[in-house]
Amino acid sequence: MEKFDIHILGCGAALPTTRHFSASQIVNVRDKLFMIDCGEGAQMQLRKTHLKFSRLNHIFISHLHGDHCFGLFGLISTFGLLGRTADLHIYSPYGLEGLFRPVLEAFCHHLPYEVFFHTFGTTEPVVICEDRSVVITTIPLRHRVPCCGFLFREKPRQNHIIREMVDFYQVPISWMHRIKNGEDYVTPEGEIISNDRLTKPASMPRSYAYCSDTMYDPEIVEQIKGIDLLFHEATFADGERGRARETYHSTASQAAAIAQAAEVKQLLLGHFSARYEDETILLREALKEFPETLLAREGMCIVVRDILPQSKS
Amino acid sequence: MEKFDIHILGCGAALPTTRHFSASQIVNVRDKLFMIDCGEGAQMQLRKTHLKFSRLNHIFISHLHGDHCFGLFGLISTFGLLGRTADLHIYSPYGLEGLFRPVLEAFCHHLPYEVFFHTFGTTEPVVICEDRSVVITTIPLRHRVPCCGFLFREKPRQNHIIREMVDFYQVPISWMHRIKNGEDYVTPEGEIISNDRLTKPASMPRSYAYCSDTMYDPEIVEQIKGIDLLFHEATFADGERGRARETYHSTASQAAAIAQAAEVKQLLLGHFSARYEDETILLREALKEFPETLLAREGMCIVVRDILPQSKS
Repeated sequence: MEKFDIHILGCGAALPTTRHFSASQIVNVRDKLFMIDCGEGAQMQLRKTHLKFSRLNHIFISHLHGDHCFGLFGLISTFGLLGRTADLHIYSPYGLEGLFRPVLEAFCHHLPYEVFFHTFGTTEPVVICEDRSVVITTIPLRHRVPCCGFLFREKPRQNHIIREMVDFYQVPISWMHRIKNGEDYVTPEGEIISNDRLTKPASMPRSYAYCSDTMYDPEIVEQIKGIDLLFHEATFADGERGRARETYHSTASQAAAIAQAAEVKQLLLGHFSARYEDETILLREALKEFPETLLAREGMCIVVRDILPQSKS
Repeated sequence: MEKFDIHILGCGAALPTTRHFSASQIVNVRDKLFMIDCGEGAQMQLRKTHLKFSRLNHIFISHLHGDHCFGLFGLISTFGLLGRTADLHIYSPYGLEGLFRPVLEAFCHHLPYEVFFHTFGTTEPVVICEDRSVVITTIPLRHRVPCCGFLFREKPRQNHIIREMVDFYQVPISWMHRIKNGEDYVTPEGEIISNDRLTKPASMPRSYAYCSDTMYDPEIVEQIKGIDLLFHEATFADGERGRARETYHSTASQAAAIAQAAEVKQLLLGHFSARYEDETILLREALKEFPETLLAREGMCIVVRDILPQSKS
């Protein structure tokens, strides 16, 4: 199975506690690492995962609050000390570069690599990153400052060739690409060999959405419909619904209502307020609305699983 | 015994590891907290000590390298979220405010307290902070950028009144201050009561010096002569003596040689390079030169002990 893993580096809210670091995650798509948010301590947490720093070339910052980006200074500095030479790309709403560049120039002036800041708008979904295997799109959220989540969608994969069948029909190499893409094979004699005799279907493309920070916002449901895993902030319990509204945050049961409406396969709660010594209350409240709910915690790795499509016949 | 404790929040060098945070310490003098350096994660480490954040009003930054000050952003932000109203004073070599102020204004624009940046020169010792019980002086160090350590010296304390004796001689209240300061008491009849019959001597004033980052520099010996506890950086082992010189750092045995020459009572090693999985090699090398040596580690608290003066008689 090709990797599509989420590593939780920090899942606390603005106040770090003895239990939670500030927001940061790694999405590992086939050994390419993407960082989402970079709160203070993200580099220490990343080190604990034993993932290779050199595999990380893209960092997405949801919004310009300190608990989502103050870890960038140390991370960028450390990458320099480790001799990194590959470009590092940082994507965020407008304003990060102007604030961070002078600090980096003063403290990290001999970096052996380049840091590029990219800006995205926060009112419409935009594709901010794309490679052979994944497309990353912003998810406009509603917070006190311009803010976006991020939707990771795997691209459809090619069917898997069944080696013995291809050998049996003596399919020439020149046909392989077409067969992987689902075409039937036509022999030199004109016989049609149905594709499903030559291939096994690829797994379904997987998907992950990160939605933090945001108030309850049903407008995001359409964009994340049916995804495999949704991380949604759950700063507060129901008892603090008013406080959630005031601060543009969500309660756990609001996160669950979004998961329910979007018919996602699994919900992961995070961005926990420091007031909860134990987040079981948040889990209980969410489970009432949506049974496939988990609490994030530091050091956790969630594998987004392959699901085979329904048989064609 | 009045508190004079050192809490180690981080004792790693520039690269944080899974075992060490970047440089930061708290000096607790009679429940007033002074922070020395503020590497990334200092606020999380401070929280683990369960010391009261509100007791911390002064932060001393030894030099402008990221691993000694990147934790300030998060710390200042957190103090704001916790509703702090007392002024916070930050002391450093020139340049910190110009770099930090714009970031703080953008990310922490509604702070309910004021942050004051103070600058000190790094060529001569200067008193940067003083209160009723302690004087804090810079220790000029030799590093790649302007850098100072910090010397904490308790002020001499008054003798302790022996209540029964004072009652016995019916010493009036108006005399107490003079007696605490060592004067003999003269009764209305002209009899002289020797001070040592009325008081017990105060403990000796205690002292602590923090010396990081610095290359081996015997010029500091004079200033720290005879102090109780010396924290000296020991980035490298002897095998890396050349590397230490190039990077303006010290080896453990150089730190021990300074402790030996200064006749300090105890040496605490820190600022360990990430290359050592275990710093026992540093300890062994230092112990050869100076037997009263300890390795710093995160979470450690060292009590600088009271020592009674030699008996007067």
